[in-house]
Amino acid sequence: MEVGNPVSVMRSTALLEQHLPKLPLLPCASFVSSTGIRPVIFKHEAQLNTGDDGAVARQFPKITAASWRHVLKADGFNEASQAMRVAVLFSGGPASGGHNVIVGLKHALAGSTLLGVRCGPKGLLAGDFFEITDEQVEHVRNIGGFDLLGTDRTKIKSDEQVATLRKVCLEHKLDAIVVIGGDDSNTNAAVLAEALFNIKPDGTGVQVIGVPKTMDGDVQQDGLLPLPFGFSTATRIYAELVGNILQDTPSSGKYWHFIKLMGRTASHVALEVALQTHPTITFISEEVREQRRSLQSIIDEIADAVLDRASRGMHHGVVVVPEGLLEFIPEVSDLIAEIERVMVADGSYAGLDRHHRREFFISRVQHLLFGQLPHYIQDMLIADRDSHGNLEVSQIPTERLIADMVAARVDGKVKLLPQTHFFGYEGRCGAPTRFDAMLSYNLGLVAGSLVLDGRTGYMAGFTNYDEGGSPVAIPLVGIMGAERRNGKDEFVISKRLVQLDDPAFLYFAQHRDEWKRDDAFASPGPRQFWGPTAYEMPLTVVINHGYGGFFRV
Amino acid sequence: MEVGNPVSVMRSTALLEQHLPKLPLLPCASFVSSTGIRPVIFKHEAQLNTGDDGAVARQFPKITAASWRHVLKADGFNEASQAMRVAVLFSGGPASGGHNVIVGLKHALAGSTLLGVRCGPKGLLAGDFFEITDEQVEHVRNIGGFDLLGTDRTKIKSDEQVATLRKVCLEHKLDAIVVIGGDDSNTNAAVLAEALFNIKPDGTGVQVIGVPKTMDGDVQQDGLLPLPFGFSTATRIYAELVGNILQDTPSSGKYWHFIKLMGRTASHVALEVALQTHPTITFISEEVREQRRSLQSIIDEIADAVLDRASRGMHHGVVVVPEGLLEFIPEVSDLIAEIERVMVADGSYAGLDRHHRREFFISRVQHLLFGQLPHYIQDMLIADRDSHGNLEVSQIPTERLIADMVAARVDGKVKLLPQTHFFGYEGRCGAPTRFDAMLSYNLGLVAGSLVLDGRTGYMAGFTNYDEGGSPVAIPLVGIMGAERRNGKDEFVISKRLVQLDDPAFLYFAQHRDEWKRDDAFASPGPRQFWGPTAYEMPLTVVINHGYGGFFRV
Repeated sequence: MEVGNPVSVMRSTALLEQHLPKLPLLPCASFVSSTGIRPVIFKHEAQLNTGDDGAVARQFPKITAASWRHVLKADGFNEASQAMRVAVLFSGGPASGGHNVIVGLKHALAGSTLLGVRCGPKGLLAGDFFEITDEQVEHVRNIGGFDLLGTDRTKIKSDEQVATLRKVCLEHKLDAIVVIGGDDSNTNAAVLAEALFNIKPDGTGVQVIGVPKTMDGDVQQDGLLPLPFGFSTATRIYAELVGNILQDTPSSGKYWHFIKLMGRTASHVALEVALQTHPTITFISEEVREQRRSLQSIIDEIADAVLDRASRGMHHGVVVVPEGLLEFIPEVSDLIAEIERVMVADGSYAGLDRHHRREFFISRVQHLLFGQLPHYIQDMLIADRDSHGNLEVSQIPTERLIADMVAARVDGKVKLLPQTHFFGYEGRCGAPTRFDAMLSYNLGLVAGSLVLDGRTGYMAGFTNYDEGGSPVAIPLVGIMGAERRNGKDEFVISKRLVQLDDPAFLYFAQHRDEWKRDDAFASPGPRQFWGPTAYEMPLTVVINHGYGGFFRV
Repeated sequence: MEVGNPVSVMRSTALLEQHLPKLPLLPCASFVSSTGIRPVIFKHEAQLNTGDDGAVARQFPKITAASWRHVLKADGFNEASQAMRVAVLFSGGPASGGHNVIVGLKHALAGSTLLGVRCGPKGLLAGDFFEITDEQVEHVRNIGGFDLLGTDRTKIKSDEQVATLRKVCLEHKLDAIVVIGGDDSNTNAAVLAEALFNIKPDGTGVQVIGVPKTMDGDVQQDGLLPLPFGFSTATRIYAELVGNILQDTPSSGKYWHFIKLMGRTASHVALEVALQTHPTITFISEEVREQRRSLQSIIDEIADAVLDRASRGMHHGVVVVPEGLLEFIPEVSDLIAEIERVMVADGSYAGLDRHHRREFFISRVQHLLFGQLPHYIQDMLIADRDSHGNLEVSQIPTERLIADMVAARVDGKVKLLPQTHFFGYEGRCGAPTRFDAMLSYNLGLVAGSLVLDGRTGYMAGFTNYDEGGSPVAIPLVGIMGAERRNGKDEFVISKRLVQLDDPAFLYFAQHRDEWKRDDAFASPGPRQFWGPTAYEMPLTVVINHGYGGFFRV
């Protein structure tokens, strides 16, 4: 047997990773001058009406006065050449396109110093910075992951943390901080913008700009930000996997697959994957809550489909559920709320082992459902909450719970061979789709331009995808409201959930009976970086916003 | 909000599925005449020496006499224009490229009738046929799945089944049967070829030709068939997912992922994915067996890496295990063998419920390990075997078992956040890589040519991927041997396991310490059908056969 020279084939990066940085970055026309990529200045557009009776303005007086809750639009190139010191960090879970935001920032801030913050807000408090070089950004162009900087989920809110941060800002002579994160992180950006507003000896402040990231797709602002970056890539990855499994079911003809998709509270991910693939049954959490469905009615619906299809010789199917489903079932949601009240009322469970912890809650929780659930689900419901006060829903094996309950329900009538899957982590760090690569690069250019234009308390936005794209800036105080968390009112950016009158949901609702009855699935395959499908857009935005199927640059 | 016209965007097939059939099929030069694709005739090459002392020849006298165990090579176009009636079926689990085998058969058998058999061997016995049209094959060109025909795992071996099959062949006036399947299915093809050798009234027989399929990669014949079809696509899908997760680990910096990869007995899939992605730790079953490692030593190795990396600030990693790992750990393998002896000796456990079944085996199985395993693993080990007598290893959550044991082992020293994954079904029916599309189409052309050339008892082969490809035919009796199954000797095609002196394994062994110590991973991303990476070959064949990194056509 002849042996080749593996050294020429093997490499520390894969072949695709060597080619991706050569793909174009796709800036929108606003940023393209005859001499190259240039930052823009902004003009004021319409004011956002918050309808919060001034509560947000009272909580954030400085950035409210600075922005007047005005949306900003691009208004020509920025001719000044300030040399600023800007720190950038990732906050929260990774999403594809994060590196391209850094590339966009670096390009917009060509005359300035861009400092990378290691490991998110935690690294910001520790002053763990390094200067990001031109070479580094060229290496991570169009590459997935957050690993150039790392990330974490620390929330900066205590007086002590804020004092530390002020010291770090002054020590490192920071002029601005760019926070790339989801709704919680952008809420935190508003807090920081207010806290750092005029902390410098000369009376000026440290500007804070947010960049909307989340594979969940829940940071949307109608007309200003159809989607955050990361959603397109995650849903294309999950849609390939769901499509492959759908393709497998009539081929092997004997399995029912129960698939949970990551995406926290909102069901945008599940809806987008359903539109792309047409699974046998998909549940949308927001509809489940609206109809006040019980867990049993969900099991019944699946069991009925299993039996109906079996009677027609089809012993296979695919059920898709969103990560947050259980929380949207009113009885489960009531139960979780009760558990969280118990947690707040008496923290003594914290040190108990699994068995005694379960006993602790069984003796205190009134809701009948709790005792009816299997132990492995009970344990999940009483687990520690993450630092944002959310239930770690991604850890609850909803897919297994439903598969087990459906199997029990059809037992003796048909032989159900269930397979369960949770698709999550594999969708957060993949190489960005061309859409996410374009969107995140432009968001970086917007954020860098906002910094140079002296703005603070703004979140970068980007819209009009099918007309070449338009930069916008969204005042954070214009999109915040009060929400009850851990028993207290907090000012947060509301998640944009699926609305039952969204055209994308209506399309789904109109076609799902056919998808349940027949094998009318589509298998969209892997996302492509070259060829005729590379410029596809997520179907949710296509349908909701009346866009064509492809984005234009 | 403006609403677009979803009808122009939504479709029963995805956009990629509309473009894939337009991609070229890539026949090798042997099949390309000035007038289009043509079948070839074959000449005899070297005889295969089986070293089985004539036992196979005695079991299969007719097809041994017909082939003389001669390998065949292409020898010009087939000028005759027989009109034959040929049935084709899938057998066993799906693998990407199956549809292109049908396309190749249809093109080679242009003047003949090609009958599709519904639902595999079961449909063959039932005579469930339909004529495959030109339009149908054009629709499934380069499309994943086995759904044009369906498949099952029935094994045709009893005298009664053979008698039924003979009747079906005569009733439907079949001249030949093409069986697309793995090692078991090609073994079955030899049985059928012998049984149908001269069953027609005129003394001629029904020819049987096998086509090698398996995503496991274990049907290999050195020099004649570097790979079956399906392996390239499955490993590229898994490598993307493992690469994405590797990319996620330093980004989020807190998880250890335990990933099991489908692939039955052999570790080719795990090795290929390791070569493509460089996970922190990968176990190769064949090496584990060779070194007679205990389950505890595997847990220790992972725990040591967890602690060593944590001491250097790295609280993340990825562990990859092959589906068959547990069977290759001698103590587990001893235990499984003992359980199977108990099953054969006393079948009375069959009707027992889970609890009593467990008690039944606990009272009879001597091996100490059995009692030490968690209940969920015990239950799997004593579950019913599939119709080929194999343990349904894909159902054993090895990844969970190992994660649980490692977590227990490092408890109190570091906080391990394990995530477990099983990647399997999502890799069997994806749109074939360009490599699998090329390979499977050519295998179909070889199989069709063998039918027209009057051959029987052969398996289609294809080799020399980086020189445009060469059709070969492999005599089934030349690659069979005796193997003990369910306590009986059976003549079967041996699986080609990973050899510890394979260059691909040696490359892995040379680099794995670096991959364990540092984050030296690669993230190969999704397979591409266009662009500079579309013609990549699996690294296993590149390294083992000294090929360049790309296949040529």
